[in-house]
Amino acid sequence: MRAMSEPMSDPERIYTAALIVIGDEILSGRTQDKNIAPIALWLNLQGIRLAEVRVVADRTEAIVEAVNLLRARNDYLFTTGGIGPTHDDITVDAISEALGVPVVVHPHARSVLETYYAARGGLTDARLRMARVPEGASLIQNRMSGAPGIQVANIYILAGVPHIAALMLDALSGQLPGGRPLISRTVGCWVPESEVAELLRITEREHPSCQIGSYPFFREGRVGANFVIRSVDEADLDGCETALIERLGGAGHEPVEGGI
Amino acid sequence: MRAMSEPMSDPERIYTAALIVIGDEILSGRTQDKNIAPIALWLNLQGIRLAEVRVVADRTEAIVEAVNLLRARNDYLFTTGGIGPTHDDITVDAISEALGVPVVVHPHARSVLETYYAARGGLTDARLRMARVPEGASLIQNRMSGAPGIQVANIYILAGVPHIAALMLDALSGQLPGGRPLISRTVGCWVPESEVAELLRITEREHPSCQIGSYPFFREGRVGANFVIRSVDEADLDGCETALIERLGGAGHEPVEGGI
Repeated sequence: MRAMSEPMSDPERIYTAALIVIGDEILSGRTQDKNIAPIALWLNLQGIRLAEVRVVADRTEAIVEAVNLLRARNDYLFTTGGIGPTHDDITVDAISEALGVPVVVHPHARSVLETYYAARGGLTDARLRMARVPEGASLIQNRMSGAPGIQVANIYILAGVPHIAALMLDALSGQLPGGRPLISRTVGCWVPESEVAELLRITEREHPSCQIGSYPFFREGRVGANFVIRSVDEADLDGCETALIERLGGAGHEPVEGGI
Repeated sequence: MRAMSEPMSDPERIYTAALIVIGDEILSGRTQDKNIAPIALWLNLQGIRLAEVRVVADRTEAIVEAVNLLRARNDYLFTTGGIGPTHDDITVDAISEALGVPVVVHPHARSVLETYYAARGGLTDARLRMARVPEGASLIQNRMSGAPGIQVANIYILAGVPHIAALMLDALSGQLPGGRPLISRTVGCWVPESEVAELLRITEREHPSCQIGSYPFFREGRVGANFVIRSVDEADLDGCETALIERLGGAGHEPVEGGI
């Protein structure tokens, strides 16, 4: 919960976040997760690095264990899923248990839901479940379906439906202290990565702020790879990109700036 | 490592697996994971339940921590990613460190790679990296690109490229002791899930072997949900499906067998 005590961003510090994807539907293979990548990209823009992700079942103990470990060792913890009106939506109860606080009905969430459901059959007990929050929480706006996301301590509780999760992230944009954004450059090459492994290793070592990831592919019957350079230091990133392009060319391969 | 000491499957036991997705490209948001869902579905067919997934960075300590925790509390541990020829491929080293065994060159992996690369420029030092395994490991066949997957203790180390990971799973099909497969039925309905929350809860409670997941969606300007019933007991599953269909109909909603 370090970030909560800091009013301002510190550009020199690396801010980290963890994500817990809550849902039997992901673990059963029924649903392909579509939240991890957009959340990671959004965090990069905030100057926050996604450090780890866990997918856990709809079981209280599994959620509590992951929440307590990950909120302690990251600046931020995000969760997706399990905040709807049905019996399998246990995220709020589990996070309250993890924090040791009671579940309460948030008055503003209740009034938002009353308005939303006024023309849709009224606020039933099941729908009122979506106004339940851990004590001390504030709300994250959901312009789509009324049921809000929840912020409590350094935990951000988002919907599981990807376009609603994305709207909640929109509502949080620019609100969270972060450091310098992680930026990247991609250089592609029609070459088996094994032929340039040594060249990649040397280039990375020469640019201490940079990591180079090598991502091979098979396309149109040919073997190639994209090399992604990541850094928070734009000058070092540029230097690393230039060095990599020169080395690939020098070894007789044609680099493709921007990737293939 | 419970499963390793059992020569036969036990249909009454619930076998579990964990999955570690290794890769900065997933955590940076550059790449959308496409391995979790196919691995989960394949495990279901083997009678093994995917209990938890972690996405970890290309950092030795992060991999070692996850490997040692998850291999101890599950029958099986799968990993994807990080077994190629480049400097960012550290999975074998990290898993060897987790197990406390040295990294060795596997003679058969070496000969497979020698054959594969004979017409492709020969077996360089970088390519030979792909023959490195934790001591005591055996290989998982890779009909696509030569570089094999690795099995050591109860750990199954797969490629990160999805179609290669899928081929490695094919090679393992039917080889791993498991219990009864988890089976599922889906019933869809054009109804807000909040209107049927109580009905779902009651139906689930009446069928103790079953879990019912509720997955809302917004499509064609309308609100609906799919209800997925999961169980290892086919008779109870059938009973639960029938009860759910009757209750939805009784409440004035039209159930759609097989889902929407």
